[in-house]
Amino acid sequence: MAADRFQSRQQKLISSLKASGAEALLVTNFTNVSWLTGFSGDDSYLLIGKSRMVLISDSRYQTQIAQECPGLEFVIRDRTVTVVAASAKTIEAQKLKKVAFESGSMTVDGFEKVRLACPGVEFIPLAGAVEDLRMIKDAAEIEEIRRAVHIAQRGFDVLRGSLRADQTELEVAHDLEHAMRKLGAKGTSFPPIIAVGPRAALPHARPTQATIGSAGFVLVDWGAQMPSGYRSDLTRVLVTSKMSPKLEKVYGVVLRAQLAGIEKIGPGVKCADVDATARKVIEDAGFGKQFGHGLGHGIGLDIHENPRMSSASETILQPGMIVTVEPGIYLEGWGGVRLEDDVLVTKTGCEILSSVSKTLDQMLIPL
Amino acid sequence: MAADRFQSRQQKLISSLKASGAEALLVTNFTNVSWLTGFSGDDSYLLIGKSRMVLISDSRYQTQIAQECPGLEFVIRDRTVTVVAASAKTIEAQKLKKVAFESGSMTVDGFEKVRLACPGVEFIPLAGAVEDLRMIKDAAEIEEIRRAVHIAQRGFDVLRGSLRADQTELEVAHDLEHAMRKLGAKGTSFPPIIAVGPRAALPHARPTQATIGSAGFVLVDWGAQMPSGYRSDLTRVLVTSKMSPKLEKVYGVVLRAQLAGIEKIGPGVKCADVDATARKVIEDAGFGKQFGHGLGHGIGLDIHENPRMSSASETILQPGMIVTVEPGIYLEGWGGVRLEDDVLVTKTGCEILSSVSKTLDQMLIPL
Repeated sequence: MAADRFQSRQQKLISSLKASGAEALLVTNFTNVSWLTGFSGDDSYLLIGKSRMVLISDSRYQTQIAQECPGLEFVIRDRTVTVVAASAKTIEAQKLKKVAFESGSMTVDGFEKVRLACPGVEFIPLAGAVEDLRMIKDAAEIEEIRRAVHIAQRGFDVLRGSLRADQTELEVAHDLEHAMRKLGAKGTSFPPIIAVGPRAALPHARPTQATIGSAGFVLVDWGAQMPSGYRSDLTRVLVTSKMSPKLEKVYGVVLRAQLAGIEKIGPGVKCADVDATARKVIEDAGFGKQFGHGLGHGIGLDIHENPRMSSASETILQPGMIVTVEPGIYLEGWGGVRLEDDVLVTKTGCEILSSVSKTLDQMLIPL
Repeated sequence: MAADRFQSRQQKLISSLKASGAEALLVTNFTNVSWLTGFSGDDSYLLIGKSRMVLISDSRYQTQIAQECPGLEFVIRDRTVTVVAASAKTIEAQKLKKVAFESGSMTVDGFEKVRLACPGVEFIPLAGAVEDLRMIKDAAEIEEIRRAVHIAQRGFDVLRGSLRADQTELEVAHDLEHAMRKLGAKGTSFPPIIAVGPRAALPHARPTQATIGSAGFVLVDWGAQMPSGYRSDLTRVLVTSKMSPKLEKVYGVVLRAQLAGIEKIGPGVKCADVDATARKVIEDAGFGKQFGHGLGHGIGLDIHENPRMSSASETILQPGMIVTVEPGIYLEGWGGVRLEDDVLVTKTGCEILSSVSKTLDQMLIPL
């Protein structure tokens, strides 16, 4: 039952609050509010405590809350009352004395307003309490991410099959989104990167009017977002002309690094160690300085979630986490190669959720 | 010249800093960073002071910064150094003693980290300094928003011409975005609202699988975003079956309210007074409680910018501001009517940038 799913999340959060000494948490990050309640709107806060839980929203969402969150207590503020003022009033009405707040997403001004509006209340900064729970996906979430991967892969088939040398990066990006939407996606999970030749040296390139045929290869970093909000994130490189020895070499190093990283993934493994394993392959090949970002990140309702797969990440992988593994080598003026898959941590190791071929000859589609 | 444009903005900001007593402002809102520098990436902060300005970014953006911001001093942090730590180092290196920060967008945790990393520095909370400057659009910005309106209107023509009773709200939303992209938009300026019949009673309805023909009218709230980032925001109601007396009545009230609001707009007028003027028409018709949101908002790089056109807004309209005027009446179970146009404040009054017909007979397209 969907309702049980939210109750289970709420119970876990309430348990995790105990250590902080707070009676309740004011959830101000809208994605966290959605994850805890099923409410899909925004501009709304959730005050969640052991004995009571109240959603603070406005009249635009009155009907929607009743539809999406049957049984949830809510307050509809008047349009002349801010969400902060309405939250303060709810905190006061419950006579709470110690309230935790999401210091990782609440703004300095927002917090100052809440603090001033609740003079007798002690506020406890608490960052990542909900985000940490969101790291472990339940069965329904894993299924949604599988679907997001599936639609992304079918979208890539359409892109592969329809790619023309005279198309611009922008056209390809837009057509890819249109294809994934027809397949049931809400849209892309982030603005896709379609980067031709030298533009692939920019790890976050944005699509331009450059045409696909203007260089010999194109990097595609894309994903689908389901109507439920869950996302996938993949990267491949398509060779649209002849293979060059340089591309073959760089591609081979990135692929070996990615496979080594994935091989390392399993429960009990530190994220930093996965990053180090993949990074070593690239460093040993002499491209260490050309891999300037972390190895990957969690995916879910957000495109970048915990755990971070970086050298600074002490997080220990656990079953149910879903992370990207995306090493890359970027050579200014020439281009870049990145390979990215979505990987589920299981009880015994891991499962690669994505299955688009990575063998170099499969990447070759002369236009 | 584009460079002059950014210099002029930077100078205005530096002048506005004087009153706060700060030597520099740490700009942490990425849209503000873009508006001040022309840099289109994210995850980067800008430290801007009278004598020096430094962009703090990472290696993903090294090439892009050089391309987009010639002449701008920048620091590329190592992947093991956070943007906060790199900013603190830059503040220390400049021996600054009083630094303002964007308290309206910086998180409590983010600020705490900056504060701890700069023990000798006094930090001054400053909210909306850049946002207030962004309210007044320059000639190039007005031109971009005109284009965003133009593309949105052409997209609406396509929607109007191709609408079928068996299409779902989602399909119409996706086709609308695809059409606007073909016309040169980067995409929609926000997820469009395509709300059939009773669903139009939700001011922020999200498109569903409901078919267009399942009720007699559909509310469309949409906009285009230009590659430059500038946005438009419009709303119309299409009558897809017969006109009902109730719809005619509600539509008439909303239209009169909107025209009264627009009529009131001009330099020197308080935003709250524009809201009150339109609201009075709806209240006098007996629908005051069914208009639960503010009258409108500024548009620009963000879809919701200052000034807010609400009863609480003391902002005085000035030439160069562009605001939406969007009264609505929402009747649960039946549906809702909202009409929205984008209006430029001029030296002598205002100019309505959008020109999609609002006469009720033009809204009638029996399917």
